Amino acid sequence: MKATIGVIRGDGIGPEIVQEAIKVLDKIAGSFGHTFVYKELLMGGASIDVYGEPLTDETIREGQQCDAILMGSIGGDPTTSPWYQLEPAKRPEAGLLKIRKAFNLFANLRPATLYEELKEACPLKESIISGGFDMVIMRELTGGLYFGERKTVNENGMRVAYDSLTYSEEEIRRISIKAFEIAKKRSCKVISVDKANVLDSSRLWRNVVEEVAKDYPEVTLTHMLVDNCAMQLVKNPKQFDVILTENMFGDILSDEASMVTGSIGMLPSASFNETKFGLYEPSGGSAPDIAGQKIANPIATILSAAMMLRYSFDLDAEGKAIEESVKNVLKQGYRTIDIVSEGTTLIGTEEMGSKIAEGI
Amino acid sequence: MKATIGVIRGDGIGPEIVQEAIKVLDKIAGSFGHTFVYKELLMGGASIDVYGEPLTDETIREGQQCDAILMGSIGGDPTTSPWYQLEPAKRPEAGLLKIRKAFNLFANLRPATLYEELKEACPLKESIISGGFDMVIMRELTGGLYFGERKTVNENGMRVAYDSLTYSEEEIRRISIKAFEIAKKRSCKVISVDKANVLDSSRLWRNVVEEVAKDYPEVTLTHMLVDNCAMQLVKNPKQFDVILTENMFGDILSDEASMVTGSIGMLPSASFNETKFGLYEPSGGSAPDIAGQKIANPIATILSAAMMLRYSFDLDAEGKAIEESVKNVLKQGYRTIDIVSEGTTLIGTEEMGSKIAEGI
Ligand SMILES: CC(C)[C@H](C(=O)O)[C@@H](O)C(=O)O
Ligand SMILES: CC(C)[C@H](C(=O)O)[C@@H](O)C(=O)O
Repeated sequence: MKATIGVIRGDGIGPEIVQEAIKVLDKIAGSFGHTFVYKELLMGGASIDVYGEPLTDETIREGQQCDAILMGSIGGDPTTSPWYQLEPAKRPEAGLLKIRKAFNLFANLRPATLYEELKEACPLKESIISGGFDMVIMRELTGGLYFGERKTVNENGMRVAYDSLTYSEEEIRRISIKAFEIAKKRSCKVISVDKANVLDSSRLWRNVVEEVAKDYPEVTLTHMLVDNCAMQLVKNPKQFDVILTENMFGDILSDEASMVTGSIGMLPSASFNETKFGLYEPSGGSAPDIAGQKIANPIATILSAAMMLRYSFDLDAEGKAIEESVKNVLKQGYRTIDIVSEGTTLIGTEEMGSKIAEGI
Repeated sequence: MKATIGVIRGDGIGPEIVQEAIKVLDKIAGSFGHTFVYKELLMGGASIDVYGEPLTDETIREGQQCDAILMGSIGGDPTTSPWYQLEPAKRPEAGLLKIRKAFNLFANLRPATLYEELKEACPLKESIISGGFDMVIMRELTGGLYFGERKTVNENGMRVAYDSLTYSEEEIRRISIKAFEIAKKRSCKVISVDKANVLDSSRLWRNVVEEVAKDYPEVTLTHMLVDNCAMQLVKNPKQFDVILTENMFGDILSDEASMVTGSIGMLPSASFNETKFGLYEPSGGSAPDIAGQKIANPIATILSAAMMLRYSFDLDAEGKAIEESVKNVLKQGYRTIDIVSEGTTLIGTEEMGSKIAEGI
């Protein structure tokens, strides 16, 4: 097949890790007889440096001609980077919110899996994680508090700030369907997370999720309050299969779940709209402190490329080939600095990319 | 001294654990020559059963005549308890929100401490927790999303739910001052948690916290994004001294931090307004599944009573006497079921209360 892949190299370690994912995609193209055309797109700090804003409308138009987008991480160090002297709407992260809205990427899927080989890096005790765990978080990505109206006003000499949280039943329904569809292909267990004992949006959330659940009799649905979920992720991560939740809760819980695995540098992420198009990116941040040192772990980005093959291009065998190669390289004992442990071999970003590409 | 203590026994295990705290307070009264008068107040499910609502105005008036309130946990099992057939505003937890507002309890203080003796119960690896950790979370408790206006409406045949998040600089300032004051008595480190890369309320939060920080040159202030904080609590809880945050983030993070200690049954909680008055309660829930079995851990409630002595009555020595007795009983190897481990002695709720009282 022939596909056009938009490439947002991003900031910090972004360019280094994206380069390795491209190396792996090229190997796939060669081995399986596909043609991947890469279209460079600027976003985040890299775009600010050129255009003075984190995502231009022109870049969005170019992205719309792509079949999928592969992205590195976005943003710099807020305390030292000049990007953060700009007004909030012009900072790197604003590009993230803008691209989500522009492409209607309402469904963010993030796996949090414990790799048997990386158990040592997991902060949790062996007794809790033995046997491993494997969950995905389905986060609503274009609604709620992060996309509500906001303002800061002066009321009688006092500053007052307002943010608003809105969800329509339609927004809740479409993300719920995505979660139940994924659950069907996994262990058929959805845990929907909300704060229904306080918020109206959460009560509507719960109602609509229950309505959708009726179409999936094979999937078990339970509800969990967000504060409890934050506890359960630490106490017993094995209980989770698919977590379905709204934008902000998903932001917090998916990061917590990543850290519970101990190897966020391994975790990919995908964001979808109603079509096959997807935006694929590593779960971790841009780590400006180690940028340019060629020590960052490219695996999350490489696995994001594997997700792209599976979900946007229906290339299951090719996606699997990447995932298997990653596992083999880990089995052979190669590690980047973030996951290295006694008895394993430390290698850099480029070597890791090459080993995974060679293993295909 | 003579003090009037409002007693809300609460639901589930509430009455059992409160009884043990009263046992300990009575011992303090006898040993140190104080008089504690208890005034029974109904709240939560217990109040619904009698009055049809979770907190009556009459109960609030009675509470206002007390010097402090000691409370058990509130609420039942939402899937089986008839309390949850009522409209949201009449359910047990609505009482919690109402009492916070009625007494203007804007400052919720929750310690998350690792007890050396209970390390086994901690879900985190020894390498992360060695040397222990000891943080407090200062959560804003009467503003933000949990107290904003909300509504669910029908727009063109579609249900849409709205919640709103508001913070004024005054609300942010008073909770910040509480956090910096506490930090001064501890390790002089405040980490303020927000989502300033997205929310207006968080940006105002950050500005006001920085203004307040100027009055506390001896305290170091850093800012952390909420998603990152959810990760850092698992990765490296030792880095925290005082966490300062808004209502909803505090709800999620304080529960996560409790679970990271592994012994939520040990953790007290206090909520304050601008006076010496305080509401003291265990951090854990009402655990309806084990209610009435007399196996629940009363220590969190007993330590809440100790906080009451310290903060509302300025009885530092008495508070310390309770805390020391708790430590001694743990050293002697006595444990309730939630914290029992090999080589320790399992005892019930009442024995635990008696041992701690005797130890004073
Ligand atoms: C940068 C920020 C707006 C973003 C979010 O919270 O959505 C980030 O934390 C993420 O999760 O992708
Ligand atoms: C019951 C609920 C309203 C409450 C809250 O979130 O404030 C509870 O979770 C708590 O933390 O005390």
